[in-house]
Amino acid sequence: MRPSGRRPDQLRPIALETGVNKHAEGSCLARFGDTHVLCTASVDERVPPWLRGGGKGWVTAEYGMLPRSTHTRTDREAARGRQTGRTQEIQRLIGRSLRAVTDLAALGEIQIKVDCDVLQADGGTRTAAITGGYVALTLALRRLQALGMIATVPLTGQVAAISCGLVDGIPVLDLDYAEDSGAQADANFVMTEAGGIVEIQGTAETAPFAEPQFLALLALAQQGIADLCRTQAAALAAAPAHTP
Amino acid sequence: MRPSGRRPDQLRPIALETGVNKHAEGSCLARFGDTHVLCTASVDERVPPWLRGGGKGWVTAEYGMLPRSTHTRTDREAARGRQTGRTQEIQRLIGRSLRAVTDLAALGEIQIKVDCDVLQADGGTRTAAITGGYVALTLALRRLQALGMIATVPLTGQVAAISCGLVDGIPVLDLDYAEDSGAQADANFVMTEAGGIVEIQGTAETAPFAEPQFLALLALAQQGIADLCRTQAAALAAAPAHTP
Amino acid sequence: MRPSGRRPDQLRPIALETGVNKHAEGSCLARFGDTHVLCTASVDERVPPWLRGGGKGWVTAEYGMLPRSTHTRTDREAARGRQTGRTQEIQRLIGRSLRAVTDLAALGEIQIKVDCDVLQADGGTRTAAITGGYVALTLALRRLQALGMIATVPLTGQVAAISCGLVDGIPVLDLDYAEDSGAQADANFVMTEAGGIVEIQGTAETAPFAEPQFLALLALAQQGIADLCRTQAAALAAAPAHTP
Amino acid sequence: MRPSGRRPDQLRPIALETGVNKHAEGSCLARFGDTHVLCTASVDERVPPWLRGGGKGWVTAEYGMLPRSTHTRTDREAARGRQTGRTQEIQRLIGRSLRAVTDLAALGEIQIKVDCDVLQADGGTRTAAITGGYVALTLALRRLQALGMIATVPLTGQVAAISCGLVDGIPVLDLDYAEDSGAQADANFVMTEAGGIVEIQGTAETAPFAEPQFLALLALAQQGIADLCRTQAAALAAAPAHTP
Amino acid sequence: MRPSGRRPDQLRPIALETGVNKHAEGSCLARFGDTHVLCTASVDERVPPWLRGGGKGWVTAEYGMLPRSTHTRTDREAARGRQTGRTQEIQRLIGRSLRAVTDLAALGEIQIKVDCDVLQADGGTRTAAITGGYVALTLALRRLQALGMIATVPLTGQVAAISCGLVDGIPVLDLDYAEDSGAQADANFVMTEAGGIVEIQGTAETAPFAEPQFLALLALAQQGIADLCRTQAAALAAAPAHTP
Amino acid sequence: MRPSGRRPDQLRPIALETGVNKHAEGSCLARFGDTHVLCTASVDERVPPWLRGGGKGWVTAEYGMLPRSTHTRTDREAARGRQTGRTQEIQRLIGRSLRAVTDLAALGEIQIKVDCDVLQADGGTRTAAITGGYVALTLALRRLQALGMIATVPLTGQVAAISCGLVDGIPVLDLDYAEDSGAQADANFVMTEAGGIVEIQGTAETAPFAEPQFLALLALAQQGIADLCRTQAAALAAAPAHTP
Repeated sequence: MRPSGRRPDQLRPIALETGVNKHAEGSCLARFGDTHVLCTASVDERVPPWLRGGGKGWVTAEYGMLPRSTHTRTDREAARGRQTGRTQEIQRLIGRSLRAVTDLAALGEIQIKVDCDVLQADGGTRTAAITGGYVALTLALRRLQALGMIATVPLTGQVAAISCGLVDGIPVLDLDYAEDSGAQADANFVMTEAGGIVEIQGTAETAPFAEPQFLALLALAQQGIADLCRTQAAALAAAPAHTP
Repeated sequence: MRPSGRRPDQLRPIALETGVNKHAEGSCLARFGDTHVLCTASVDERVPPWLRGGGKGWVTAEYGMLPRSTHTRTDREAARGRQTGRTQEIQRLIGRSLRAVTDLAALGEIQIKVDCDVLQADGGTRTAAITGGYVALTLALRRLQALGMIATVPLTGQVAAISCGLVDGIPVLDLDYAEDSGAQADANFVMTEAGGIVEIQGTAETAPFAEPQFLALLALAQQGIADLCRTQAAALAAAPAHTP
Repeated sequence: MRPSGRRPDQLRPIALETGVNKHAEGSCLARFGDTHVLCTASVDERVPPWLRGGGKGWVTAEYGMLPRSTHTRTDREAARGRQTGRTQEIQRLIGRSLRAVTDLAALGEIQIKVDCDVLQADGGTRTAAITGGYVALTLALRRLQALGMIATVPLTGQVAAISCGLVDGIPVLDLDYAEDSGAQADANFVMTEAGGIVEIQGTAETAPFAEPQFLALLALAQQGIADLCRTQAAALAAAPAHTP
Repeated sequence: MRPSGRRPDQLRPIALETGVNKHAEGSCLARFGDTHVLCTASVDERVPPWLRGGGKGWVTAEYGMLPRSTHTRTDREAARGRQTGRTQEIQRLIGRSLRAVTDLAALGEIQIKVDCDVLQADGGTRTAAITGGYVALTLALRRLQALGMIATVPLTGQVAAISCGLVDGIPVLDLDYAEDSGAQADANFVMTEAGGIVEIQGTAETAPFAEPQFLALLALAQQGIADLCRTQAAALAAAPAHTP
Repeated sequence: MRPSGRRPDQLRPIALETGVNKHAEGSCLARFGDTHVLCTASVDERVPPWLRGGGKGWVTAEYGMLPRSTHTRTDREAARGRQTGRTQEIQRLIGRSLRAVTDLAALGEIQIKVDCDVLQADGGTRTAAITGGYVALTLALRRLQALGMIATVPLTGQVAAISCGLVDGIPVLDLDYAEDSGAQADANFVMTEAGGIVEIQGTAETAPFAEPQFLALLALAQQGIADLCRTQAAALAAAPAHTP
Repeated sequence: MRPSGRRPDQLRPIALETGVNKHAEGSCLARFGDTHVLCTASVDERVPPWLRGGGKGWVTAEYGMLPRSTHTRTDREAARGRQTGRTQEIQRLIGRSLRAVTDLAALGEIQIKVDCDVLQADGGTRTAAITGGYVALTLALRRLQALGMIATVPLTGQVAAISCGLVDGIPVLDLDYAEDSGAQADANFVMTEAGGIVEIQGTAETAPFAEPQFLALLALAQQGIADLCRTQAAALAAAPAHTP
């Protein structure tokens, strides 16, 4: 029995609420149980310097945690004057994941910046950020289309993410903090709605693990990602035509 | 007529929602119209170095804006590696305001850190932060009392804040962004429920103003603060005994 | 009786010495008793990026304290790698105060940078900086006029600043360090020679204060500012035509 | 045919040279073809603060690239004042990989810092760093054993790393820079000599990839890691008893 | 003929004014012509960490230039967030020079921090800083002696500094900015009143120079240092017994 | 007898190995005994901003030490977020020394960046850096000539550097770490093959020294530099025509 009472292959309650920020071109509050991540997508008409004049666009992401999103308060990165290695690693992952389903040439010389800010953390913040970030990005692209700045929404698929891990030797889906801190191994999977693998990051925490164990985690992830993609699609279908 | 349709002496709709963060000892989401500030109060059993061993406590505050809380996206302070002067000025103001109603000797060697993070900005973020920060602080102190760490809640009064300004020559209460950006003068008032002045910051934006104009702003503020203090009291009365 | 032997409404001995730096377009050493602030105004033909091409000028200020300007030595901000919140707050105040009397459109696309460096501190450094900064700014503008770069000196008035406070319940003018550290309330006033209010910053130090007390401080300030404006006028009248 | 003329399952020429630094407790220059990484292991008798007094040791890593290790010169991180996200991500990976085979309790309160500095880069610097870092770490531990500071070398296995990728649709082993920059997918595998998985990081570069493709990369990695572990063992067997 | 009308072996007018800061244990405003450096010596009862418990003291120096001390305004180091290489080089030189005549064992576990801040620059700021820094240091040591904290003033000699250079092929003493910027070679000499060499820094600016030229500069320096030491002695003799 | 068994006027074994980096336009591994410095020269077609459009080129240098180049490990400057004063002082010296023999007008608007990274330190790293940096610079300039970007190699001479010091009262050449840490005085000389002085930096470590002692050090340096210039010439003569 898992601490939360879930079955090994059961996601936490997932909610993807759109239209949560009146300024952003696209926004989504992603809730994976008690993990709450506010995702906004902002349009910037300047691409990074190395892309200027090439006709291609860019999608990038930034990630942050509010100081008291964590169990005990964490120092504010802005006050310490630098982002931790963990923050940079996560925001690079979010950016790569979103670019993997974006046709940057079709976007044209526009940059979308997706900010993922953790309001409350209970494990799996990066997977909620990618899953909600995709929704915010899609809404911002629809907005650009509505404004006539792009002809079609330049996405080649959906992308979502989930964590899996070995807890007491059992492969389980969507770890919360209580499980994450005691897992033997832990992997994050970023995949498309078609089952394509975008990113895999697996780490042994207590001892090296074997290929069959890894494949069991992958199978759980495939199922969880399919569920998340259905939730994304429903949230996007329900969003008003011109958000925000 | 004000852009929002309000009377000159009318506050925006105010909401102070408690219990919005499951980790923090006290929390409050303060909404002044479209300005939304998430306030959490965290207990730290270490006071700053200069107070150690003196038996007195401390209350401090930090302030931040999410990158897309603003109309167009603002660079993330953690990424730029330093907090702006504006951020530091505001967080110093919040801290002073909360300490003005706290009996630090009665608190004992405990520090409360109040984080005020702007989720969405539409003018008046510092006043919402002080008003909501007071609620979060009170809840954290009640929590300490419930745990037996302090005998009574060491507050000497309530504190709230509001802005007033001269817009088209008319003194108005609780400026939103549309008014703020065109005001001739703009002042922030921090006051207690008993009408005591804690902090006044008034600035001429387009031309120096005269004493009678300033006194008109002060009068508006006194009335607005009284309303805010009633809303604080109601939110605190409704909060469950042991929050969170 | 005040520690310095002054009456409650008495300024410290004030001296505004011009022409104290051979390189600067305008300079003034402002002495308010033992508080000595060296103010220089430097002309920069580039305005900040957000003003370029708009035909308007800018006035900005920077503030610093020499490490041993204070009673015990303070760490050097350049060595610590960041300016404190207090420094940023003060330099933003000085800049706003000087811009309040400058006609930026008449200045044209020119920037004046006013540096206020505290050589010795005994309370009231920000008020000495504003009062002396105005003199340095005026001299730099006269210099630009003498060079034919501007037709007239684009100032709409004089600006000066003074602190007042409640000490042992008595409203007093121009606090020195001994008074400042024990005051119940403390306010800085920035005003024009015509009595227009440019900026008010009042803070309760020990307990909230009441409106009549605040009005008593304002009355003291009005009188003190009038004196300071006379001293400014005299210093400027005595300055050689082409300084430096 | 690969740009280097290698077969798909062929490593570059691998050399692990020990004793290359006269000061370090352990050192190894790892060459994977034209990728050269200098690894040193330094003993520090202080563990990080959060471990003090717990009787356990720590292994950590730092990574850097010389400015002209790259094809065109890269700015020096020390001059820019911060390490990039990529640098932090890599050094965290190296540290986790080495800790995965170290019995930290058996090490006792000692810290080993492994520095991996890239002298020349041609793809795969992080895999060379882990593979050479393991050799340097082992030598430093032997040194501690020779000094009587630990009873046995507290390693639970060997660890090495290799990259694999899909290039023109073909799974290939140990990508050099020419291949890496054009790969469709790219994965780094960190494994033990017994085939245990320590870390997997796979990324789709141009389009999502499928599970069978990923399994082909994993199979290549298992074979490459086995070869690298034999080379490590030979280098360690040939190292003089007391290095350095 | 030199731009200033001086003979090749003639110093600028030198003034060493003591007692210029009411807080510092020792202070001296050093004027070498239009170069003005404010030197303060501050006593700190904590020595740096690496000296604690060893019974020895330390003398260190910091150097800074006010933004408009220079011909055109220089950015403030505190605002840029780092000290330049030039600043660090100069403050290390000042510290070494003052330690060369201090008996650190006789000082005991006390640190003296000498701050040298350039109010106005016209060449030779580091030599004025060393020459005036010695006076401030001596006064601070006398103060410690007067307080009974040390038995004798622990100085082994006087130290002063001067620059020399080759200008239009002629060796000249004490370069001002006009000469410095066009010199073929330029050297700073730090020496004792007994002619002992403490530090020599010579640099070819346009072309390498020869040994005889260097010896001519050294001879000029010896004479100039002797003069400076007499001026130091006179300033110290005239200083009131208990400064400040 | 010196710790290394050398005569007072004897250099350590010197080796200047070229072509040690496949990417750099010029490279040299300079070994002065156990001091090993990797020097690379990189061509950058952009000159610094202040030179743009003036037709002149620039040569600059950066210096770094690998963390375990030193006897005990030194913190990595990139991790600490700033370069030490020592690092900046050394890299400024290397840059000045190389520019002293470069005809910047003949180079044209091209910048050469010379990176000197210490792989292993045993005293005299800055002198090895200058001596090896000259070789790397020359090779990069030859490369530009071979590519037709410059007509001739724009060097006006050779430049090399050596340290001398007073150890137990005896003037000795090319100090290693054991000697350096106990020297009474220590000087670095940068000179041309024709005996021209480019830079002299002499420092008294324990007590001021006298002119004759300084002249003895200079004489030793002249002889050592002549040897180093012969070794440079031989290394350059042996380098293949088109390196790399």
